[in-house]
Amino acid sequence: MSRLLYDLAAADESIRFSPFCWRIKLALAHKNLAFESIPWHFTEKDKIAFSGQGKVPVLVDADRVISDSQAIAEYLEITYPNEASLFGEPPARPLVSFIKTWTETVLHPALAHVVLADIHALLTPEDQTYFRQTREGYYKRRLEDFAVHRTEATAALNSTLKPLKTTLEKQPFLAGLAPNYADHIVFGALKWAVTVSSTPLLEANGVLERWMNAVEETYGLA
Amino acid sequence: MSRLLYDLAAADESIRFSPFCWRIKLALAHKNLAFESIPWHFTEKDKIAFSGQGKVPVLVDADRVISDSQAIAEYLEITYPNEASLFGEPPARPLVSFIKTWTETVLHPALAHVVLADIHALLTPEDQTYFRQTREGYYKRRLEDFAVHRTEATAALNSTLKPLKTTLEKQPFLAGLAPNYADHIVFGALKWAVTVSSTPLLEANGVLERWMNAVEETYGLA
Repeated sequence: MSRLLYDLAAADESIRFSPFCWRIKLALAHKNLAFESIPWHFTEKDKIAFSGQGKVPVLVDADRVISDSQAIAEYLEITYPNEASLFGEPPARPLVSFIKTWTETVLHPALAHVVLADIHALLTPEDQTYFRQTREGYYKRRLEDFAVHRTEATAALNSTLKPLKTTLEKQPFLAGLAPNYADHIVFGALKWAVTVSSTPLLEANGVLERWMNAVEETYGLA
Repeated sequence: MSRLLYDLAAADESIRFSPFCWRIKLALAHKNLAFESIPWHFTEKDKIAFSGQGKVPVLVDADRVISDSQAIAEYLEITYPNEASLFGEPPARPLVSFIKTWTETVLHPALAHVVLADIHALLTPEDQTYFRQTREGYYKRRLEDFAVHRTEATAALNSTLKPLKTTLEKQPFLAGLAPNYADHIVFGALKWAVTVSSTPLLEANGVLERWMNAVEETYGLA
């Protein structure tokens, strides 16, 4: 297949947890674009050196190489204009930007405080060393401290999820009757966390679990 | 004039601070609809009894009476379809719903914790009694306690404002190159707080102050 996506994997390569890779997997499905996903580990920098940088997602689309999830989403929107739009026209597209920013500055940190120690446990030994060094450097905190404060972090996460739950109690998707890239972004965040979490994060059959299932069903992933 | 808006006022009737009334004042300006605003105080329930409920905003548009800001916004969108849309078409309209929910469940409480005691000081004596009773009942906390914890509340507010600041550093308005109801909702929240706050809430000439000025300039309110 001529379309490849390098996708972050755990030691068990069936576990794919990157929120940014999930965005792109949904965006590709939204655009009806088949692709082969290639499991990739944090420390396999050499495998994606051809992209000129060291992080995934990396999309290889025939002779094009694109890295960075936002750049990939914009590439897909421009390159495949006859498929359903990822963002919608203005004012939809700038409104998606607020949801993206909220996800990255509020939701991701709230989820990270609950699951960072869980992620570490799932990685290859090489990746564990890399993950501990980079995450402890970023958060100025030992991974073991996150595990100790999991109860408070879970309470804070539930508070953070409130506007999301309230919105999805009133409409099927963030983008209305069908998902768009706003849903992909937030789904990616929650999928990342529920995939790696050692305890259930979302209420069983609650509004968020039902929304995640509906997103997966929309794209034939369920 | 045949279009009247009942608008919450302080003891000094030039002080208009309701976030929900501000939404509607901007929505009316967005639709190019002139109106006369009537100052109203919390305890003047008799003055708006004709609306069948006891809160503002209440819009009287010729022979129509509409209360509740969301109902008024939807009424304006349907009744004046030839003016600029308040919400945009789907997927813009459902995306606005997330921003509305975030504003009401996250931003409003964060602002309230800073300014509730300030609001009390500005009200008529009758309204002060009503305000203390309803707000202390809702928050399970004395107004004086909010004043004592103002420093922590201000720090929490700055953290809450982060996704808003980050978004508006990258685009002129939440809705893109021009404001829509998403901007009106968030502007209403900040206008409420800066109008009543006893100390400056926003960084002088920072991104949020510049955005608020740009919203006001768009509608000739500056």
